[in-house]
Amino acid sequence: MAADLNSLSATEISSGVASGSFTAEAVTQGCLDRVATREDAVMAWEFIDPDLALAQARAVDATADKGLLAGVPVGVKDIIDTRDMPTGMGSPIYDGYRPQTDASCVARLRAAGAVILGKTVTCEFAGLTSRKTANPHDPARTPGGSSSGSCAAVADNMVPVALGTQTGGSVLRPSSYCGIVGFKPSFDTFSLKGVFPAAESLDTLGLHARTVDDVELVTSALLAKDHQPAPDMPRPPVVGLCKTWMWDDAQAETQQAVEKAADAMNAAGATIRDFELPEEFEWLADVRGRINARERAVAMAGEWANDKDRLSEQLQNTLQYGIDTPFEDYLDAMYLMETCRVRMNQTFEGCDVLLTPVVDGEAPVGLTDTGSPRFQALWTMLHVPTITLPVHTGPSGLPVGIQLVAPYRADRALMAISRWTLDAIGA
Amino acid sequence: MAADLNSLSATEISSGVASGSFTAEAVTQGCLDRVATREDAVMAWEFIDPDLALAQARAVDATADKGLLAGVPVGVKDIIDTRDMPTGMGSPIYDGYRPQTDASCVARLRAAGAVILGKTVTCEFAGLTSRKTANPHDPARTPGGSSSGSCAAVADNMVPVALGTQTGGSVLRPSSYCGIVGFKPSFDTFSLKGVFPAAESLDTLGLHARTVDDVELVTSALLAKDHQPAPDMPRPPVVGLCKTWMWDDAQAETQQAVEKAADAMNAAGATIRDFELPEEFEWLADVRGRINARERAVAMAGEWANDKDRLSEQLQNTLQYGIDTPFEDYLDAMYLMETCRVRMNQTFEGCDVLLTPVVDGEAPVGLTDTGSPRFQALWTMLHVPTITLPVHTGPSGLPVGIQLVAPYRADRALMAISRWTLDAIGA
Repeated sequence: MAADLNSLSATEISSGVASGSFTAEAVTQGCLDRVATREDAVMAWEFIDPDLALAQARAVDATADKGLLAGVPVGVKDIIDTRDMPTGMGSPIYDGYRPQTDASCVARLRAAGAVILGKTVTCEFAGLTSRKTANPHDPARTPGGSSSGSCAAVADNMVPVALGTQTGGSVLRPSSYCGIVGFKPSFDTFSLKGVFPAAESLDTLGLHARTVDDVELVTSALLAKDHQPAPDMPRPPVVGLCKTWMWDDAQAETQQAVEKAADAMNAAGATIRDFELPEEFEWLADVRGRINARERAVAMAGEWANDKDRLSEQLQNTLQYGIDTPFEDYLDAMYLMETCRVRMNQTFEGCDVLLTPVVDGEAPVGLTDTGSPRFQALWTMLHVPTITLPVHTGPSGLPVGIQLVAPYRADRALMAISRWTLDAIGA
Repeated sequence: MAADLNSLSATEISSGVASGSFTAEAVTQGCLDRVATREDAVMAWEFIDPDLALAQARAVDATADKGLLAGVPVGVKDIIDTRDMPTGMGSPIYDGYRPQTDASCVARLRAAGAVILGKTVTCEFAGLTSRKTANPHDPARTPGGSSSGSCAAVADNMVPVALGTQTGGSVLRPSSYCGIVGFKPSFDTFSLKGVFPAAESLDTLGLHARTVDDVELVTSALLAKDHQPAPDMPRPPVVGLCKTWMWDDAQAETQQAVEKAADAMNAAGATIRDFELPEEFEWLADVRGRINARERAVAMAGEWANDKDRLSEQLQNTLQYGIDTPFEDYLDAMYLMETCRVRMNQTFEGCDVLLTPVVDGEAPVGLTDTGSPRFQALWTMLHVPTITLPVHTGPSGLPVGIQLVAPYRADRALMAISRWTLDAIGA
């Protein structure tokens, strides 16, 4: 049996460990075995110490009071502090760096009985400069970024869930490329204490999983709340089909994924309405680079002053652009973004959820370019909760997701709608 | 001359160092001499190393390209990371802790030529549990908290400016108690990278100084923008006199400070209007404790798990309250607060600024209780920029400030209005 434990969901694992069907140690060993078999091809991990992982698992087995995530192995993106493992930020500057304390999210996971299996590969400082991870579905293609290792590890059944972060599209894009569920909650939902900042007005901790139930379970653990899954929808949802101004540039598989989903949802009873964003929302695409670059330059002022030469040329260029961006231009961009956020919630009126593309298409070939964040970044800027569901396959046999977007703080409704949607599509 | 350098403003120091009137080393030595004389009575510093400070000053003197803060000694609250000095968070848990990198704000100050004189005393994790600092005006009274040391050091002419943080009232309250200028900008103005979080939806980096010009100067350095002080008001301001629902409970000196300021502003040509906050804003006072406690408990999940016994009983109680607060109650509180923020900017219509109490009265006797944050915390929750100006003296001869509040992101206008107000009052 142990051979298959690594492919169980977090929900199945915690329930099995709690009931004594199997031990946390056996689950962790199963995941470690999977890593041992596949890591050479996938390269998802920056740090993994089997003894340390097994010791955590045995401690869970020895505890009478099993938590919500009893024995669930979790991958943690390597920009998130862990007190017992190095935290390298995907940069030689932090090579071997040992934080004093666990990040809030890691402490919460441990308190719920999770096993921190190891640290997953991140692009340099959660930016665009990729490292080594391959797409588990095709080693010649990128898994996406910047949460590359977290996504690949979950997609490859090395762990059921992993932590990622999204500043542009770093959770949802790789989740679509790797064919898993990726969730970015409303801005400010999960604490960022102990997470290296990228752009502070955009940074959001998110989750990679293979099921919506697992997203809900880990969310409950991170929020330290009673776990009551969102009740089923009392009626089919009203869905705004939001193609966005980027639709015509998306690849055919992305258009098909969204249109097929809309048809299936409609057939299952949903009301589908064409949904257009207010025209000035297009400006968000213009100002995003400015906000991102300036906030990154501010957050990394210390690294810039002391270790500039150890940053990649790509990141140096981004930070230099940020440094060269006048504060007044940044403030103009922030005004626009903040106005759009307020308008967004008025804009939803009548729709429970928006259905929209998540990526341009299948994962691009090559490991250097992690793909375009444009379809994800729009919603990150608006601070609304968003999820990608793996419902489609492209012409090369690679996964293509759809994206569902809910109003700010309607994260729980988004879970119920996601489950309904997967049922409707039969995915 | 060196004997008086410690009492110069940052603006005077940077100009004098740039023009060669005196050296950065002489200024730093002047500040160190003041500390040597007064520290036994004031206890403002958690860490200060004269050699390290003088070495920074000599490096500034050796640089041809003088920055905006050339040779300006700065105190840094001890929850803010410094790569060359310990960062203790006001807690034995972080005793001797040496961060890997400077906080963004510290790196920005250094890049502008400032001298980080040392680390100033903070209440435990920027909360309510005080440490040792006394009010420079009366050693039997609190300087306020949590930015106790930063305030006392500036008020006592040990440094011209210092960094503080405000989650409830930790910048403005001690600034009023100590008789200096305290500024909390719009939420998210200064990066919090490298600043230990208290409650993440409220935390704001702020400034302590003796002049409004210095607040503007340091703001420009932190934002890395060209320094152009806000132009003078083209006309006297329209002022909303906002007594708030707490007015009748404030002490007489607070009421007098506000009323005298209103009279003086009126006499100088300002339009004074009675200004009432929407009634539901009173609920903010009810929900503040819940938001603060729950966010603190989340941010400190790691310390709670590993070092609970080394937290003060007071902080343990706060965190326990946070842990016991259901997520749904927290979310209700956040909805209310976020709604009030959106309403706040509509509410300003017609007023350039609000004039409102900043504290209950003079600094309380005793060093344990740092005073009530209620008059400051309201505006922190609303994310608006706010400043206290030292314009009044209470019955015991201790300073009492007023508070001016501007709309979100109108920080620059607030500077011009503050200068106009000080002129009008003749303070």
